[in-house]
Amino acid sequence: MPKSPCVYIVGAGPGDPGLITVRGLRRLESADGVVYDHRIDPRLLRWAPADAEKIDVGPAAPRPLEQDAISLLLVEKAREGKTVVRLKLGDPFVFDRGGREALFLPEQQIPFEVVPGVPATIGVPAYAGIPITYPGAGDVVAFVRGHEAETDEPPRGEWERLAGVAGTLVCYAGAQQIGAMASALLANGRSPEESTALVYDGT
Amino acid sequence: MPKSPCVYIVGAGPGDPGLITVRGLRRLESADGVVYDHRIDPRLLRWAPADAEKIDVGPAAPRPLEQDAISLLLVEKAREGKTVVRLKLGDPFVFDRGGREALFLPEQQIPFEVVPGVPATIGVPAYAGIPITYPGAGDVVAFVRGHEAETDEPPRGEWERLAGVAGTLVCYAGAQQIGAMASALLANGRSPEESTALVYDGT
Repeated sequence: MPKSPCVYIVGAGPGDPGLITVRGLRRLESADGVVYDHRIDPRLLRWAPADAEKIDVGPAAPRPLEQDAISLLLVEKAREGKTVVRLKLGDPFVFDRGGREALFLPEQQIPFEVVPGVPATIGVPAYAGIPITYPGAGDVVAFVRGHEAETDEPPRGEWERLAGVAGTLVCYAGAQQIGAMASALLANGRSPEESTALVYDGT
Repeated sequence: MPKSPCVYIVGAGPGDPGLITVRGLRRLESADGVVYDHRIDPRLLRWAPADAEKIDVGPAAPRPLEQDAISLLLVEKAREGKTVVRLKLGDPFVFDRGGREALFLPEQQIPFEVVPGVPATIGVPAYAGIPITYPGAGDVVAFVRGHEAETDEPPRGEWERLAGVAGTLVCYAGAQQIGAMASALLANGRSPEESTALVYDGT
């Protein structure tokens, strides 16, 4: 961990602004600039200083930036001497491009720190009252990338192995993928009796 | 979600007290009683009111309680009219017995709320600088229960399928289990060239 980080890659949690960590909140409070995903709850941004620069770069932003441009923006702001918070939904390292930024920043000699967050795959089932593991009910929980993929393709080759895993599967998916996912799991031996939940707009 | 919960099952995060969520912190600040795991950082308990009753029930506590006794304790304190925080390491539903408490409380007509947390499987690699997923490097991340199991047995039957999953495996394990886990993965086809990290006492 660098001694005086100037970029903080912070997981905001799955939606409810109360699910950011205390450490993430402290980083926001001391930010000179916030580079945030479009779907971030605006209440989170109010925790940053009023005069901090706030830049929306998410894929649904009015002017979305490509990943490389976001990484360069972080470097540019840090080189201006600013303390920058890169605020991301969920956790920066769970099916997010935080890993790219975390590799690019040290290449550019920019110190950084990662503040993990509650991913949607954990926070969303919890708010829906669903324990994703239960004592005695399986030794594995697997998170599966769905529509947040670069290619918008669910992982076709994986269903055979995933179907056989004795535990819980938590899939990110767009509504149009659900049928294909369910069919692939059933075709590969997952029991049609197994409990399933669909959660939309969680937390 | 109940309207006036009196037991809050709160994930404290993996160790660093700054990794509790803001919502979890608020629940602690308004607690009349805190029932906590032994390994919880004592700095977290200082956020609860000074006069709140604080009860250590974790497996390493001077007087550890069985799970059923912990669940009954929560009910007893709630029936005294207290706002109780059940503070657990990591996330209450990721290889924890939070699911048991979450089922027992409504059976006893005790309203409750779950506040998710950052699990060790996410927070610990992040603090070690390891992205557990990376764009283009796999569609799955699987958490595997190790020594926190009821039986202290790693999931023997699962290695064949897990070894073939194109993604990251994050295993909870005691040091004495690591050799057996690695051998089982290699015997089932996982590449010996794959990067591996062991993290002890994370965050």
